[in-house]
Amino acid sequence: MPGSSHERSDAARNRQLLLDAAETLVREQGADAVTMDAVAKLAGVGKGTVFRRFGNRAGLMLALLDQSDQKMQWAYMFGPPPLGPGAPPVDRLIAFGRARLALVEVEGDVRKNAAIGGQYGGPPYNIAKTHVALLLRQAGAPGDIALTADTLLAALDAGLVLHQIRALGYTLDQVGAHWERLVRQVTARPVQ
Amino acid sequence: MPGSSHERSDAARNRQLLLDAAETLVREQGADAVTMDAVAKLAGVGKGTVFRRFGNRAGLMLALLDQSDQKMQWAYMFGPPPLGPGAPPVDRLIAFGRARLALVEVEGDVRKNAAIGGQYGGPPYNIAKTHVALLLRQAGAPGDIALTADTLLAALDAGLVLHQIRALGYTLDQVGAHWERLVRQVTARPVQ
Repeated sequence: MPGSSHERSDAARNRQLLLDAAETLVREQGADAVTMDAVAKLAGVGKGTVFRRFGNRAGLMLALLDQSDQKMQWAYMFGPPPLGPGAPPVDRLIAFGRARLALVEVEGDVRKNAAIGGQYGGPPYNIAKTHVALLLRQAGAPGDIALTADTLLAALDAGLVLHQIRALGYTLDQVGAHWERLVRQVTARPVQ
Repeated sequence: MPGSSHERSDAARNRQLLLDAAETLVREQGADAVTMDAVAKLAGVGKGTVFRRFGNRAGLMLALLDQSDQKMQWAYMFGPPPLGPGAPPVDRLIAFGRARLALVEVEGDVRKNAAIGGQYGGPPYNIAKTHVALLLRQAGAPGDIALTADTLLAALDAGLVLHQIRALGYTLDQVGAHWERLVRQVTARPVQ
């Protein structure tokens, strides 16, 4: 086992420093601005350190997405309502979609840059789907819960939302309002 | 202008013969079975003819998708109800989804093989979206019609539906029933 616990916590801090720098670059200049060089400069370390930590640019991008997924998961599992526990399920679903949409403009580019395919069935997809399905069940949504969760997540697909915002000219607010209506529609009890 | 009109209609017949052979291969053995060689053999022509007509395998796959898109478009624009004109808009929407789903098991593989990216905003996507939006408008669906059309088409995404069928074990019928419910949910007039 190489390294003392002190060295390991240094390494973790170092890694976090680099990820924070990368995140800042994405937020301020877009995903294309995230090069190993730019991250090293902003973090004030040598370029070799970034390569040692993440292997290559794709590795850095994946680590970035991983961190973003974990923050989001923490927020909806343990954070304050309405995203976290304590609010009615429909309100939590609405908050979930709006939180995802807020990430899309930035994260969508990162996901494109990381060239991640086959999202369905991957761990991040399944974690989000489990959460959405749970809230749908709590809200008493009719029909097949898992298929409805897939449909809701499909409406939040980064590629689709970026197309709606960039090519079709919608605002995030308009897409968010559509999401809210969709959540209410799929959770409404059918009138018999 | 090379070739007489007789020669040109011969070429068109020839092309159709090869596409029919490719379609048969996809239906019976899956998209992976569609090689230039197999298509030539089934159509009873030399391999060179297939290459002359379509350039390469990707070109053949694209021509196949194009033909499938056009058949589907014809069916919903001019074919018999409920897919074609003459049925109530909600019934036509339901029929549209079920018709697309019936194609997915075969076509989904072809689309994967043709490695088509960036579907949003491409002509086939936009033609389908225009149709779905028209029916949503006729049905008096509330909210933003274009965003709702995107959501409905996202629920029919070939990659998603193949995942539901192959990885999750749903039947086409179950996915079709989910589609029908979704259509009724997004077209229902809100109770005030």
